[in-house]
Amino acid sequence: MQPDKQFLASQRAADTADAGHSIAIICGGGSFPGAVADAITRRGWRPVMLAIRGWADPNVVERYTHHWVALGQAGRVLSLARAEHCCEALFIGTVLRPPLTQIRLDWQMIRMMPRVVGFFRGGDDRLLSGVASLFEDGGLRIIGVKEVAPEIIGPEGVLGRYQPSPRDRADVARAFKVMAALGPFDVGQAVVVANDHVLAVEAAEGTDNLLARIAELRGQGRVTTPTGVGVLVKAPKPGQDQRFDLPAIGPRTITNVARAGLAGIAVAAGSTIIADAAEVIAAADRAKIFLIGVGEDAT
Amino acid sequence: MQPDKQFLASQRAADTADAGHSIAIICGGGSFPGAVADAITRRGWRPVMLAIRGWADPNVVERYTHHWVALGQAGRVLSLARAEHCCEALFIGTVLRPPLTQIRLDWQMIRMMPRVVGFFRGGDDRLLSGVASLFEDGGLRIIGVKEVAPEIIGPEGVLGRYQPSPRDRADVARAFKVMAALGPFDVGQAVVVANDHVLAVEAAEGTDNLLARIAELRGQGRVTTPTGVGVLVKAPKPGQDQRFDLPAIGPRTITNVARAGLAGIAVAAGSTIIADAAEVIAAADRAKIFLIGVGEDAT
Repeated sequence: MQPDKQFLASQRAADTADAGHSIAIICGGGSFPGAVADAITRRGWRPVMLAIRGWADPNVVERYTHHWVALGQAGRVLSLARAEHCCEALFIGTVLRPPLTQIRLDWQMIRMMPRVVGFFRGGDDRLLSGVASLFEDGGLRIIGVKEVAPEIIGPEGVLGRYQPSPRDRADVARAFKVMAALGPFDVGQAVVVANDHVLAVEAAEGTDNLLARIAELRGQGRVTTPTGVGVLVKAPKPGQDQRFDLPAIGPRTITNVARAGLAGIAVAAGSTIIADAAEVIAAADRAKIFLIGVGEDAT
Repeated sequence: MQPDKQFLASQRAADTADAGHSIAIICGGGSFPGAVADAITRRGWRPVMLAIRGWADPNVVERYTHHWVALGQAGRVLSLARAEHCCEALFIGTVLRPPLTQIRLDWQMIRMMPRVVGFFRGGDDRLLSGVASLFEDGGLRIIGVKEVAPEIIGPEGVLGRYQPSPRDRADVARAFKVMAALGPFDVGQAVVVANDHVLAVEAAEGTDNLLARIAELRGQGRVTTPTGVGVLVKAPKPGQDQRFDLPAIGPRTITNVARAGLAGIAVAAGSTIIADAAEVIAAADRAKIFLIGVGEDAT
């Protein structure tokens, strides 16, 4: 196939001239695509934003070389990556599981549809891994954020001024156990435990909604653990393909955890995005909540 | 101890005169206490309502012999049970996990406090089993709804006009698996699965809130499975002491499942309360949703 030959030629060129190394960033919503692009730029590489229409934020992606693509235009993503000399791409930012009917298919995608329909059954992880395999078959290697922007991944240890108490550490351990138990079901990157009691398990609602729920239930007297007790734990699903959909926290998470009346946040060290670390830690200190990265040994 | 001797005497009297057999119903909120009292009356026994102030509905409990008690008045519950010649009691109706500070303690409870404080750590199941052991030590046997009112427990099989599809049955099976995995954590009497995708896991919020969330997320485009796909499954926590806090559905559950756009409801046969079965089944038929009791073999 002619395009693949062209692609391999550009790949070799990129390999031999690292200064011109270009990486495609397939951008969903939020500010993280910009943080990743900045990290790539700091390494002397060139980010190319392939911005998903309806999800990517124009204010974020338009600061860089960018092209707009529709969900489902796998062929267009592959040809743009080739034209921009990218042999690697990563996914970053929010794209909620789309309904099949809202996806705009190009011809390459239509040819792949029998496979794609299969990805839509089952959990998000299967969907994303399936989509990645389509790109890899087209010659575009899908990499993880960790490989090009390790500085936006939360490290191990206490990150702010406040320390978790032994009570908090027990709640953290229990939350990690709940996540491990849910591993086979592709559900739950967030769990809230207070005084050994599981208050909330995230599924389709997202962490902001989950924390708002705790605040609301507390207001209604349905959550009765005292304020300042309980933890939010964020971690990838066990066995999850960590090239996609890493859990993430930001300043808003801190605000919401404080409103929910919890003591702090624990994240899986090495696999949770904390994009504005300085801002997040300052916010945690102001709210008097602890923030800790927990290594795999400790869970 | 003098009171215990009196109590044992009354117990013997009850055993020998079954027609006068009295059963204490420790009543939380909702209509279920009335349904249980009616079932007990139909058996020729005498219900005595011990209504928890702030939770029990006066319109429900005042139709029967009744006394009001405050949460934490274990001594008063025991002495009322003795005075009313009850040697058995059951718990029924809603009482949300109370904050320790809102509990009114009587002297007997204060003597037991070191044990009670322990019950408040950990899940609801441990709390309830602990409270039951206090009563049993005081000579009041705690029984389950099944023993005196089996007719308000959902049976096995399809209960309405609509049948679950093979797709629905697969979702039901997956939801039961999620519950089994969460067994050790005393969380989740309800799970929603649609097209193999776990949409919601119940923790502190209760089933009505959980279903409202699905409806809301669907409105926001965050739940994208088509309307008429997906199931609510209600079942006791694995290993739960089934004398307490059985899962329950009622006409409102049907309304909420329909609003959430799900296909139907599956309950654990033999351990889920369906108090107004005729009304619930009629509501399910009107809403075109299926309702099925699933036996242990099938899960």
